[in-house]
Amino acid sequence: MIFSMTDDADDLSPQEQIMEATFRTLQTHGFSATSISKIAEESGKSKATLYHHYDDKEDLLGDFLGFLLDRLEAELDDVDPEDPRDHLLGLIDLLLPPDMDDEASQFRRAILEIRSQAPYHETYRAQFERSDELFLAELVAVIERGIEEGRFRAVDAEEAAEFVFSAAYGAVERGVTLEDPDVVERNRTVVREYVESQLLRYA
Amino acid sequence: MIFSMTDDADDLSPQEQIMEATFRTLQTHGFSATSISKIAEESGKSKATLYHHYDDKEDLLGDFLGFLLDRLEAELDDVDPEDPRDHLLGLIDLLLPPDMDDEASQFRRAILEIRSQAPYHETYRAQFERSDELFLAELVAVIERGIEEGRFRAVDAEEAAEFVFSAAYGAVERGVTLEDPDVVERNRTVVREYVESQLLRYA
Repeated sequence: MIFSMTDDADDLSPQEQIMEATFRTLQTHGFSATSISKIAEESGKSKATLYHHYDDKEDLLGDFLGFLLDRLEAELDDVDPEDPRDHLLGLIDLLLPPDMDDEASQFRRAILEIRSQAPYHETYRAQFERSDELFLAELVAVIERGIEEGRFRAVDAEEAAEFVFSAAYGAVERGVTLEDPDVVERNRTVVREYVESQLLRYA
Repeated sequence: MIFSMTDDADDLSPQEQIMEATFRTLQTHGFSATSISKIAEESGKSKATLYHHYDDKEDLLGDFLGFLLDRLEAELDDVDPEDPRDHLLGLIDLLLPPDMDDEASQFRRAILEIRSQAPYHETYRAQFERSDELFLAELVAVIERGIEEGRFRAVDAEEAAEFVFSAAYGAVERGVTLEDPDVVERNRTVVREYVESQLLRYA
């Protein structure tokens, strides 16, 4: 979703190396089969080193989700074109990625598995709350700006943001669990269409 | 979601008794902790009896999902008011239940856990595909009827159905995993609002 490993491994700090190994382990094995041992193996570090930093799998994955969210915040700052329409469509691209490949899909699948465990683990729940809030706040802000600048109609910004967010979230989860990229593509069109026809003042 | 145990236990067939026990076990313990042993205990039957009917947990839960879907189909047939608007809002009530209580929420949480495992288990995936298709077909049919009868605007029925379904699905999953019933309520309002303002010809 929000993790692109473009950095050279040698330039990564020890924590970043663990995060990268966690990312690859989740992508390859899914959440249930991910363990401290597997992450240690993937990172080329000893289990003892990982247990020095983390109490258990939940502790490590909580940290990993926080790390992803920090990257997401940075990425959200980057999506900031002048035109509110382009800005909003850019956010929708983050939520409903165009041409989602197998790797992106496998990673989203693992994240969804973690989210399905959130009701049982406060560590996870706190991170997903933060992630939803972050996205919703960003969507509300750009819609409000669009309205102020006369580019969007005077809709209820919070309602429109909620609708776009839930639809995008639901579409990705549906597509990923059914392993059907068409669901994501189809909903991408539908959500973009909603923006063009319902939000834009001059469609 | 779609399981209401109003029948007298004595009137249930052996299979229905197992389904009811599965429902209660999932609700109480969640998916991960649900096992054939726990379901046997809950149903008052022996493990041997359950293993006589089912190979393993996946086999039993696959059957359970199929059973739920049969009930959903029956329930969908019941939601059939003459006015397409009322019909559509009735379907939205099934997807985004008003005043979802803790028990309904706990059950949805377990279903989401199973869905998060669908990419790894064809048995589950097939049932969720059927469930999505069932709901989408029903939504498309009522929107098309509304357009034919001049009650709805001439929108693209498939796109509108997809949008409503993904938004409702996403909202419930978000609310359930964050244990925040407000998310569900808020999105209920937003989705109904979309129907009233975008689909209805005379809003």
